[in-house]
Amino acid sequence: MPVDLTGQSIIGYRRGGKSGAELRGIDPSTGESLSPPYYSASRAELDDAARLAAESFPAYNRLSGKQRGAFLRRIAENIESLGDPLLERSSRESGLPMARMKFERGRTCSQLRFFAEIVEEGSWVDARIDVGDAARQPAPKPDVRSLRRPLGPVAIFCASNFPLAFSVPGGDTVSALASGNPVVVLAHYSHPGSAELAGMAIRNAASESGLPEGVFSLLYDAGQEIAQALVSHPQIKGVGFTGSRRGGTALMKIANARPTPIPFYAEMGSVNPVFILPGALQSRAESIAKGLHGAVTLGVGQFCTNPGVVVTSGDDALFAAQLAQRVSGTPVGVMLNRGIATAYQRGISERAARPNISARAVVAAPTADGASPCGATAALFATDAKTWVADHTLQDEIFGPSTLLVHANTRDEIFEIARQLEGNLTATIHGTDDDLRDYADLISLLETKVGRIIFNGYPTGVEVCHAMVHGGPFPATSDGRSTSVGGRAILRFTRFVCFQDFPQSALPPELQDANSHGIWRLVDGKPMQSKIGSV
Amino acid sequence: MPVDLTGQSIIGYRRGGKSGAELRGIDPSTGESLSPPYYSASRAELDDAARLAAESFPAYNRLSGKQRGAFLRRIAENIESLGDPLLERSSRESGLPMARMKFERGRTCSQLRFFAEIVEEGSWVDARIDVGDAARQPAPKPDVRSLRRPLGPVAIFCASNFPLAFSVPGGDTVSALASGNPVVVLAHYSHPGSAELAGMAIRNAASESGLPEGVFSLLYDAGQEIAQALVSHPQIKGVGFTGSRRGGTALMKIANARPTPIPFYAEMGSVNPVFILPGALQSRAESIAKGLHGAVTLGVGQFCTNPGVVVTSGDDALFAAQLAQRVSGTPVGVMLNRGIATAYQRGISERAARPNISARAVVAAPTADGASPCGATAALFATDAKTWVADHTLQDEIFGPSTLLVHANTRDEIFEIARQLEGNLTATIHGTDDDLRDYADLISLLETKVGRIIFNGYPTGVEVCHAMVHGGPFPATSDGRSTSVGGRAILRFTRFVCFQDFPQSALPPELQDANSHGIWRLVDGKPMQSKIGSV
Repeated sequence: MPVDLTGQSIIGYRRGGKSGAELRGIDPSTGESLSPPYYSASRAELDDAARLAAESFPAYNRLSGKQRGAFLRRIAENIESLGDPLLERSSRESGLPMARMKFERGRTCSQLRFFAEIVEEGSWVDARIDVGDAARQPAPKPDVRSLRRPLGPVAIFCASNFPLAFSVPGGDTVSALASGNPVVVLAHYSHPGSAELAGMAIRNAASESGLPEGVFSLLYDAGQEIAQALVSHPQIKGVGFTGSRRGGTALMKIANARPTPIPFYAEMGSVNPVFILPGALQSRAESIAKGLHGAVTLGVGQFCTNPGVVVTSGDDALFAAQLAQRVSGTPVGVMLNRGIATAYQRGISERAARPNISARAVVAAPTADGASPCGATAALFATDAKTWVADHTLQDEIFGPSTLLVHANTRDEIFEIARQLEGNLTATIHGTDDDLRDYADLISLLETKVGRIIFNGYPTGVEVCHAMVHGGPFPATSDGRSTSVGGRAILRFTRFVCFQDFPQSALPPELQDANSHGIWRLVDGKPMQSKIGSV
Repeated sequence: MPVDLTGQSIIGYRRGGKSGAELRGIDPSTGESLSPPYYSASRAELDDAARLAAESFPAYNRLSGKQRGAFLRRIAENIESLGDPLLERSSRESGLPMARMKFERGRTCSQLRFFAEIVEEGSWVDARIDVGDAARQPAPKPDVRSLRRPLGPVAIFCASNFPLAFSVPGGDTVSALASGNPVVVLAHYSHPGSAELAGMAIRNAASESGLPEGVFSLLYDAGQEIAQALVSHPQIKGVGFTGSRRGGTALMKIANARPTPIPFYAEMGSVNPVFILPGALQSRAESIAKGLHGAVTLGVGQFCTNPGVVVTSGDDALFAAQLAQRVSGTPVGVMLNRGIATAYQRGISERAARPNISARAVVAAPTADGASPCGATAALFATDAKTWVADHTLQDEIFGPSTLLVHANTRDEIFEIARQLEGNLTATIHGTDDDLRDYADLISLLETKVGRIIFNGYPTGVEVCHAMVHGGPFPATSDGRSTSVGGRAILRFTRFVCFQDFPQSALPPELQDANSHGIWRLVDGKPMQSKIGSV
C-alpha cells in the first residue's frame, strides 16, 4: 500500500496546513535531508486536535472492549500492510538497519494485539462490587460498585530511539487507546516520515472502524512551542513521554504548573547498573564479558536499558581485559541523529578527561573523510568505588555504546554503590547461588532503586508481557508507580469511578449483576467470574 | 488503661523534647485551653523520626501479611482499650459529641481490621507471573514476575474534622502501614491530646509486636516549619494529606519541587453537587429536602462530602421552602476550632452579600453572651444557573452547614452547570427511572468530574469497603487516580517491582511457584490461586 507523504499534521480526519516552520527527516548515515518537508502544526491546529479529542471521548470511552480490541487489531493490520516502505523510511530516518526495523514492526504489532487481547477479555478494569444490604444495622449498607475509567484526551511524545515501538503506534499510544483515551501524538523530529506513515495507519483504522473524529491526531513541531502548549492544554488530561531527562523534567514542570495538574509519565534516562558478584566473576568472566558487550553496543547503545555502570569486586582483571578487547573491536555505528551523536562524543571525551577514570578502550572517532556524520565508536571506562561514590555526575547517562566499570574493593563498597544509586529502570545481578545468599540484602536494596531486577541476564530486552515493569523511581521516570511496557501500562491513563446505589440499567456493563462480559470481578472482596444473584 | 499525656512528640520508641514552640488543645465550645501544653518537634527530632523510619523499612516491608495484619489488629485493640478517656479527650478537643466520637472510634477500628483482612489474605499485591520458555524462537522467553511493593517512609497529615478516623490512626496511616510503609504522622493542632493517645496506642502496638523502632512516629508542630520540612525530607517517599485546598496545594508544590519528587496524595475541598432531576423533584420534594438537610448539617457540616451545591430544575418552590424551613430550624452547632468557625461565618456573610444570590435561610449568629466561641448556624442560599456558571468562585467550598440552591431553567442549563464543575469527590443524582433515561449523558459527564456518583441518596456516608472510591479529579484531590477510603487505598503508597529470571529461593514468597500464601495471581495472563507446575 504505497502512501504519499505530504508533510502535514493529522488533525482528526483532516490534514494540517503547510504554513508552519519546516523540519525534515535526515539520513544520519549521510546527512542527506529527506523529502518531503514537514510543517509545524499551528496553535489553532493543536486546539482543533485537542477539541476533537475531547468531543470524541464520550463515544470512544463507551465502546466495548471488543470494539476497542478490533480497532487496535486494525491498526496492526494497517501498519503491516504498509509493507517495506515503512521499514525503509524508518531505517533511513533513524540509521537503524532494516532487520532491526522489521523486528521493531513485529514488536509494535504484537504489542497492539497484546493490548487488544487485554481489552477484549476485559478484567483489567478492576471491577469491584460490594452488594448493598438494606437490613444492615445500625445503618443500611449501600450498594457500592467501581471500576477503572479513562482520563480523557492524552498527549503522547514519541521517542527518538524507537521510530515505531515507542513512537506514533508505540506503547504509550496503544495503552492510552486501549483504556479508552483519545490521543494527540507529537511526532519526533528525527522521524517525521515514519510518523506520518504510522499516523495514517491509525487514522485510517479509526475511520474504517467508524470511530468518531478526534480519537487520534498527529502533530509536527520544529521547535518546542507546540510541545509545551500540548502539555498545558486544558483539554489534555494526561501525558506520556519517552526521552531525555532534560526534556522530561521540563515538561513535567509544565504539567505540574497547570491550573489543573494532570498525570505525567516520562520515561527518562537510566544507567541500569550491573553487579557482577564474586562467584559469577570467577566462574563466568568470559561469557559475561561477551553478553555485556552485546548489551552495551546493541542498537549503537541507544536503549534506555543500556547498562552504563558495571560493578565488579575481587579479581576482575580477566573480565575487564575481555570486555576491553571486545569493545575495541566494535565496528563504528551510526547514531540516530547529529544531536545524539554529538552529545555522545562530548560525553565520552569528558569522561576520558576525568581524573581517576581510565579509558580502557576508546576507539578513535572515524575521520571525517567518508565517515558518517553521526558515527559513534564504543567506549569502556574504569574507575574505583571511591571515585564513583564521590562524584554523583558519574551517574549521568551517556546515551550510546559506552559503559563504566566500577571496581569495589570490599562488600561494603558494593553496598555503598547501591545505596548511592539514584532511581533506575533496571538493575542486573550476576551471581552464583552462593552469591545470592551472601548478597540477599543487595536485592532488597536494589528493589527500592529500580523497577526491574534481572538475574544472570542483560537488561536490554524488555519482554511485552503481563508482568513486565518498565519504570522505576525518579529520575528514571517521573512517576515510579507505573510501567510503560507490559499489561499494567493500560492502568496509566485511568482513574477509579464509583457508583453507589445505582439501578442495574444505569451501571456500566462491567458492574451489572449479569456480568455479560464474563470478566473477573471482586465481589464482596472475593475474586469471581460469575454473575451475581439469580439474574 | 489511663494514659498520662506528656505533650511530647513520639520519635520511634522514644519521646521528643519539651523545648519547641507550644500549642494546646482548645475546647471549641468554651474556648478553654486544655492541658498539657504540646511542644513542636525540632528539626533534629524530625530527622531522627525519618531516619528511624528508613532504617525500619527493610525489616518492616519484609513482614508477612499475617504479621502486618496482627500489628493492625493490635493497634485496634490498643485504641479500644484506651476506653472513654480517648473519646472524652477527642470530644473536648473537637466539639464533636461523645456519640459521634464513639461511632468514629468504631469506624477507625473496623478500618484497621478491614486492612488487616486484606493483607492477611494477600492478593492485593497484584502478583503477576509470566513463566519463561527457554525454547521460544527466535529468542528465549524470560521468566518475568512482579508485584506491588511499598514506597518507603510515608508522611501523614491529620485532618481537622476526624480526630480519629482521618487522623493519627486513620485511613492514610493504616493503608500506608498495611502495604509495608513506615509512617511519620504530623498531628493536627486542633487535637493534640487525641493524637498522643492514639499515637501511643500505635507505638505500643509496634513494640508489643516486636517491630523495629521507627515504623511509627508522631510529630507536633505549632507552625508550618516541620510540616514543610517533612514533605521535603529526603527519607520521605510519599505523603498523605487531608485538609484545605490552600494547605494541600502548598504542600503539593513542595513535594513536586523536591530534587526527587514523590507521590503526594491530598484530599482537599469539595462541594459535592447534588442534581435533583425533574421527576424526583415532583414526586419526592419533601423527603429529599429532609435527607438533604440532614446531609448538609451532619457534624455541623464539617464533612468533605458535605453537599454544597444543589441543582434543581422545574418547579422547585415546595422543595426550596421545605429545605429553608428545616435549615431555619437547625440548632446552633459548635465547629472544630475558631479558625474554621471564623472562616465559615466569613464565607456565609460574603455569600449573603453577593448580587443575584438570595439568602433563603441564614440564621442569625448567636450573641456573644454565653455563646460558644465556635458557634455556627446553618445557611441556605439560592441563585440561578446563569449566575452560578458565570462566577467560578461559587464553586469554592464553604466548610460548614450551608448549601447553595442553583435553579436551572432548562435541561441545557443543567448540563452547562455539570460541564463547568471542577473536580469533586462526589456527585449525587436524585431521579426517577425516566429521569435516568433522559439524563444518561449527565451521568457520563459527571463521571469525568467526580470519584463517586450516588443515586437517590446522600454523599456524606463513606462506606469502608472494597469498591469505595473517595477521591476525584483535581482540585478535589491532588491525584485523581487514587482513593483514600476503601480497599484500593492500600495501592497508594506502592509501586511495581519486577524480577526477571530469578531462582525461586530469591523471589518474594508471593512470586514463588509454590504460592505458599495461596493468593490470587495472574499467571500467563490468567487469574488463578493455584501453585505453578509440580511443586
